[in-house]
Amino acid sequence: MNKQIKVGVIGATGYAGVELVRLLLRHPHADVAAISSVSFEGKQISDVYPSMREICERICGSSEEVIAASNVVFAALPHGLSQDTAEQCIKSGKKFIDLGADFRLDAREDYKKWYGSDYKYPELHDASIYGIPELFRNDIKGKSIVGNPGCYPTSVALGLAPALRQGMIQPQGIVIDSKSGVTGAGRKPTQNTHFPECNEAFSAYKVAAHRHTPEIEQTLTKMAGERATVTFVPHLLPVNRGILSTMYAKLKEGVTGEEIRRLYEDTYSNEYFVRVLPKGVSVDVRNVRCSNYCDIQLYTDKHTGLLIVTSVIDNMVKGAAGQAIQNMNLLFGFCETDGIDMIPPAF
Amino acid sequence: MNKQIKVGVIGATGYAGVELVRLLLRHPHADVAAISSVSFEGKQISDVYPSMREICERICGSSEEVIAASNVVFAALPHGLSQDTAEQCIKSGKKFIDLGADFRLDAREDYKKWYGSDYKYPELHDASIYGIPELFRNDIKGKSIVGNPGCYPTSVALGLAPALRQGMIQPQGIVIDSKSGVTGAGRKPTQNTHFPECNEAFSAYKVAAHRHTPEIEQTLTKMAGERATVTFVPHLLPVNRGILSTMYAKLKEGVTGEEIRRLYEDTYSNEYFVRVLPKGVSVDVRNVRCSNYCDIQLYTDKHTGLLIVTSVIDNMVKGAAGQAIQNMNLLFGFCETDGIDMIPPAF
Amino acid sequence: MNKQIKVGVIGATGYAGVELVRLLLRHPHADVAAISSVSFEGKQISDVYPSMREICERICGSSEEVIAASNVVFAALPHGLSQDTAEQCIKSGKKFIDLGADFRLDAREDYKKWYGSDYKYPELHDASIYGIPELFRNDIKGKSIVGNPGCYPTSVALGLAPALRQGMIQPQGIVIDSKSGVTGAGRKPTQNTHFPECNEAFSAYKVAAHRHTPEIEQTLTKMAGERATVTFVPHLLPVNRGILSTMYAKLKEGVTGEEIRRLYEDTYSNEYFVRVLPKGVSVDVRNVRCSNYCDIQLYTDKHTGLLIVTSVIDNMVKGAAGQAIQNMNLLFGFCETDGIDMIPPAF
Amino acid sequence: MNKQIKVGVIGATGYAGVELVRLLLRHPHADVAAISSVSFEGKQISDVYPSMREICERICGSSEEVIAASNVVFAALPHGLSQDTAEQCIKSGKKFIDLGADFRLDAREDYKKWYGSDYKYPELHDASIYGIPELFRNDIKGKSIVGNPGCYPTSVALGLAPALRQGMIQPQGIVIDSKSGVTGAGRKPTQNTHFPECNEAFSAYKVAAHRHTPEIEQTLTKMAGERATVTFVPHLLPVNRGILSTMYAKLKEGVTGEEIRRLYEDTYSNEYFVRVLPKGVSVDVRNVRCSNYCDIQLYTDKHTGLLIVTSVIDNMVKGAAGQAIQNMNLLFGFCETDGIDMIPPAF
Repeated sequence: MNKQIKVGVIGATGYAGVELVRLLLRHPHADVAAISSVSFEGKQISDVYPSMREICERICGSSEEVIAASNVVFAALPHGLSQDTAEQCIKSGKKFIDLGADFRLDAREDYKKWYGSDYKYPELHDASIYGIPELFRNDIKGKSIVGNPGCYPTSVALGLAPALRQGMIQPQGIVIDSKSGVTGAGRKPTQNTHFPECNEAFSAYKVAAHRHTPEIEQTLTKMAGERATVTFVPHLLPVNRGILSTMYAKLKEGVTGEEIRRLYEDTYSNEYFVRVLPKGVSVDVRNVRCSNYCDIQLYTDKHTGLLIVTSVIDNMVKGAAGQAIQNMNLLFGFCETDGIDMIPPAF
Repeated sequence: MNKQIKVGVIGATGYAGVELVRLLLRHPHADVAAISSVSFEGKQISDVYPSMREICERICGSSEEVIAASNVVFAALPHGLSQDTAEQCIKSGKKFIDLGADFRLDAREDYKKWYGSDYKYPELHDASIYGIPELFRNDIKGKSIVGNPGCYPTSVALGLAPALRQGMIQPQGIVIDSKSGVTGAGRKPTQNTHFPECNEAFSAYKVAAHRHTPEIEQTLTKMAGERATVTFVPHLLPVNRGILSTMYAKLKEGVTGEEIRRLYEDTYSNEYFVRVLPKGVSVDVRNVRCSNYCDIQLYTDKHTGLLIVTSVIDNMVKGAAGQAIQNMNLLFGFCETDGIDMIPPAF
Repeated sequence: MNKQIKVGVIGATGYAGVELVRLLLRHPHADVAAISSVSFEGKQISDVYPSMREICERICGSSEEVIAASNVVFAALPHGLSQDTAEQCIKSGKKFIDLGADFRLDAREDYKKWYGSDYKYPELHDASIYGIPELFRNDIKGKSIVGNPGCYPTSVALGLAPALRQGMIQPQGIVIDSKSGVTGAGRKPTQNTHFPECNEAFSAYKVAAHRHTPEIEQTLTKMAGERATVTFVPHLLPVNRGILSTMYAKLKEGVTGEEIRRLYEDTYSNEYFVRVLPKGVSVDVRNVRCSNYCDIQLYTDKHTGLLIVTSVIDNMVKGAAGQAIQNMNLLFGFCETDGIDMIPPAF
Repeated sequence: MNKQIKVGVIGATGYAGVELVRLLLRHPHADVAAISSVSFEGKQISDVYPSMREICERICGSSEEVIAASNVVFAALPHGLSQDTAEQCIKSGKKFIDLGADFRLDAREDYKKWYGSDYKYPELHDASIYGIPELFRNDIKGKSIVGNPGCYPTSVALGLAPALRQGMIQPQGIVIDSKSGVTGAGRKPTQNTHFPECNEAFSAYKVAAHRHTPEIEQTLTKMAGERATVTFVPHLLPVNRGILSTMYAKLKEGVTGEEIRRLYEDTYSNEYFVRVLPKGVSVDVRNVRCSNYCDIQLYTDKHTGLLIVTSVIDNMVKGAAGQAIQNMNLLFGFCETDGIDMIPPAF
C-alpha cells in the first residue's frame, strides 16, 4: 500500500510505545518507518513482545534514525527527555507528538514545581498545543508540537468540560477520585506491581500529590474561565487497562440534573469518541477496553447538591496511544477516526 | 472441648453465613450447635462449599431448630426476614445478632424509606444496639439484640469518627467514594458478577442511592453531635474481598494534619483491630484480607482544605462475620479478640 | 461503502455471536445485514452489550429475518438448533456457517452418542465440511455448509497435525491437557463462573468426558491415516480469553526434536495465522488475545520419549468467530485474512 | 503464654518465610524467638509486609542469632545456602527444617546434575529425612534434619502414592501436568510476574526441565518399589496461591476405577490433611486456599486405559510453610495438626 506519511516511534518498547506501534501498523495512511528504544536498541520489538512475532519484527534503532526517517515522530519517554527530540524535529520540519509530560503544562513554574526541572527550549512551548481533540480541535490542526495529555487528565477533562464551560458547577474544590489499571504504571516490574501483591489488592497512591494535578487544573481552569482547584486521588486497580474517574462538584444554584444531561448530550452528540450513556447505564472500564472511546454517566445528589460525573477511558488508548494518533490525524488532515475506530470487545 | 456457649447460624449458606460458620468453628468458647438455610435445607454445608468437607459436614436445618439449640443466634438474611427470628430469640431468652439490615437504623422512617417496609416489632428496636465495638462498646455489653453494621458503614465510621467527635471536620457534604470486592454482592450469580463481565471491569453502582447511606449518616451524626450529610458512591472492585473507602471532608479552620494524625493515633492506640498506619504507608485491601483489622491512613490537601481518610477492611470479616463475633464476645464477656485474631496473609 | 456480501448472525447476543458481529462490522467486504437472538428479540444488541453503544444499535430480529437478508448466515446456537436453519439456508441458496456442534462430526453415531440426538437432515452433513482452513482449505472453498470447529479441537488439531501426518508420533493414547478461559462457558451466569468462586480458582471439568473428544479424535485420525485415540482433560482458567493445550505423544523410534521442529516450521511457514515460536520462547495465551493467531511451541522429553506440544489460541477468535470469518473468506474468495488480521495487544 | 519451644525462621521476608512466621505466631506450643533476612537485616518484618503491622514488628537479625535463640530452625533460602546453617544447627543440638532444596534428594549425583553443585556435608544428608508426613511419618519422628518437600512434588506424591504402592499403575512414563499460582515464583518482581503480563496470561515453563523432576521421581520410585519415570510440565497460573496437578498413568491390566477409589479412601481415611473427594466433585485450588489440605479426585479413562488423578494444595501451606510445621509437630511430639488446622475460606 502506498501510504501517505512516514511515522516513527521513540520509546517503542514501553507500554505506550508498543501500543502506538500496534495501532499505527493498521493505520490506513501511516507507514511505521522506524522505531527506537534505549533499553532494547538493536533488538527486534518482537523479542520484547512475542505478541508481535511475524507481525512487526522491526529492529529498535536510535532516536536520530527515527527522526530522520519520519514525517511525524511520536515519543513515549519519561519526562525531561522529549525536549531535545522536539527541538530536532522542529528544526528538520517534522511534526512531533509527545506522549510524555514535557509539553502539557503552559506554566513554566508548574513544570518546575511538579517535575523538578526547567524548560530547555521555552520557545518550543509557545509553539506547542495540549492535544485533547474534543476540546481544542481547531487549535491543534496547524501546530507542529502536540503535548499528548496524561491519562487521568483526559478522563477528567472530558467528564467536566461541558458543565464548567456552561458555568453549571463551581470550579473550586472539585473532588476527583480516579482508579487506573496497572499498565498505567508502565513496563518496569516493581514490588507494587508484582502479581501476588497487586492481584486481589487495591490502594490509593500519591494522594493529593500526583503530577497530573496541575495538568487537570490547567484544563479545568480554561474550561471554567476562572481558577479551578481540585483534590485528586488516584488508586491502583487490579486490571490491565482502564481508568474510571468519579468526580464530585458543587452544582450552581438552580441547576437541574436534566439540564446537565441535555448539555452533555448536546455537547458530545457529534463527537465520535465520547458516548454519554443513557440514564441507568453505568460506565464500566470494560466497555471501552482496547478502544478510543470515553463513556460518561451523570448523577446529581440533591441531598448534598453535588453533580457526580463518572467517566471511563482505556488508559493506553484514549489515555495515550489512541489520542496521540487522533492528534496526528488532525495534524495531517486525515479523518479523525482513521486507525483508531476499534470496537471494544464485549469481554 | 467443653465450650461455654452454643451458637447457631441462620442463613449459613450465604457468603456471610459460611464465613461465620468458618470462624465460629475455631472459636475457643463457642460451639456451633446448629445451622440453617432456606435454599439448602436438608443438605450438608459441605455440599454447598466443598472447602468445608471433613471439617463441617453439618446438615442445614430450619431456623426454629437453630434457635432451639443455641444461646446466641446469628442471622445472615436479606432485610425484612430477621425480625421474626429476633422476636423468637428474645422471647426464649436468647441473644440475637443480625447481620442483615433490620436492626441498623434507629429512625423507623429511614427504614421505611430505604427498605420499603415498616418495623414489625418496634419495641425490639428499642432494645437493640448498633454494633461497632470500637464506637459503642459499653452500650453493646448488656444488650440482647445487636444490629451488626453494614460493610461500607463500618469502613466509613471507623475512618471518620475521631475527626467528627473532636469537631475537626465539617460534618456536612462529606464525599465517600467506596470500592468493594465482589463477595459483597453475595452468593447468587448475576450477569454483573459473571466472571467474564466482572473480571477486568470496574464500575460505580447505586450512585448516591445506596441503602447504606442513611446508616452512614446516622453514625456520623452521632459522632458529630450534629446532622451529618454524605454523598456516598460505591464501586464494584474485581477482587474477592475487601473494601477501601476514600473519604473527603472539609477541615475546620486552623486544624492541621499533625493534630489529626495525633488524634487518630491516640483514639485507636488501644484498639486491637484498628491500625493507624505511619505516614507514607498506604492502606491496601490485601493487608487486611481474611482478618478483622481496619487500617486507616490520613492525608490533608492544603490546596483545597480537605482531610482525606482512606480506610480498608475485609468486607466479609470486619464488615460482616468477624465484627458479629466481636459483638458476641462483648455480649458474653469473652476476650474481644477471641476467635477473630487471624493474621492477614501477606498474599 | 459498497460491500460485496450481506451477512447475518443468528444467536448474536451470545459470546461467540457478539464477537462475530464485532469483527464483521469491520470486515472490508461484508455488510452485517441482520442479527437475531431468542433471548433478546426486539432489543438492541447495545442494550445487552453497552460496549456496542453508538457502534451497532441494531435490533435483534428472528432467524427467518436473518436468513432472508443475508448471503451467508452464521449461527452461534446450542447444539441441535442449527439444522433447521441450515436446511433453510441451503434451500434458499445461502451459505451457512455453524459455530455450534451440529456439523462437526462425520459419524452419525458419534453425534448420537455424545449429543444425544440424531441428525435431522443427514444429506446436509454430506454437503458440509469441517472448517479448519489450515488443514482443509481446498475442501472448504466450494462448500455451502461449514461446521466451524470447537475451540479445544482447533488448538489440538493445529498442534498435532504436522507430526501425525508425517507419522512422527504414535496416534494412540495421546494425552491432551487443556486450559480454557471463562468465556468458553458462555454468557449465562452459573455458580461456577460467579466471580468470587471462579477468580483465584482452578479446576478440571468433564475429565475424559468432554464432547470435544470425538471431534478431536476425528481430526487426528484423518491426519494420522489411522485410528487416533486421546485422553482429553479440560480445565477452567480464571482469565477471560484463551486456550492453552499441552499435548503429550509418544515419539516414533528415532525421531528427533530437530526434525520435528523443522517439520512444523516448514508446514506452517506460509500460514498467516500459525506461528511456530523459536526455541526458548513459551506460548502464552496473552500473546494471541483478541487475534486469530495460533502459537505453537515444541519440546521433546528424551527421558520418556515424548513429544510435548503446547499451542495457544483465543478461544473466541481462532476458536470461534475469527475462524468462522476465515471460513467465510474462503467460501467467497476473499483474502483469507480480511477482517481478522487484528494484532494481539501486548497487555 | 508459656510455650514449649523456641523457633526461628531464616529467610523470613521471602514468601515461604513470612508465611511460616504468620502460622508460627499462632502455634500453641511454639514461640517465634528470632527471624532473619539477608535483604532486610535490621528492618522490621512489618516494614516489608504491612499486613504484619502491630502483629509482629520483630526486627530481622542474622542467621547466627536465629540459631542461637531457637530449639528448631526453619530456613527458607535459595538452594545451596542451607547446608552451613544445617551444620551449625546439628552441632549445637538444634533441629533443622529446610524449606529449600538442599535436603530433598538422596542421590548426590541428582543434586549435582540439577542444582550444579555438590553436597558440602554429605554426612548431614544421611541424617536427614524427606518430610512428607503422610508417607514417611515414622521415619521423620526421630530425625534432626528435615528436607521439606517442594510444592509440586508434594501434590504429586500424595496424588500417586497409593496407586503406586499397590502396583495398580505403571510407574514408567507418567505424565504430570501441573499448574501453580504465582507466589511459587517468590517475592522478587520479574517481567514474567509483572501484573499486566501475568494477569490474563497462562503459559508453560521449564517444560520437561524443572528441578522438581528428580524429586518427584525419587518419591514415586520409593512408592513403586521400582524405577518410576515422569514427564513433568509446570504452568504459571494467574492466581496467588494453589497448585493443581493433573496426573496420567497407565492402569495395570484389570484394575478398575472402583478399586482405585476404595484404595485411596482407605489409605487416606485417617489422614487429617488429605481429602479424597466423593465422585462428581472436582478438586479446586480455591477449596484448599490458606490451608494445609490436599484434595484428591480420581478418574479412569477406559477408552485409553489411563488413571487420571487430580490433586490440589496451597503451594505456600501444604506446599511449604504448613508442611514444615507439620514436620516440626512430628519432631517434637505435638499433635500433628497444631497450628495448621486452618479452615480454607469459601472465597
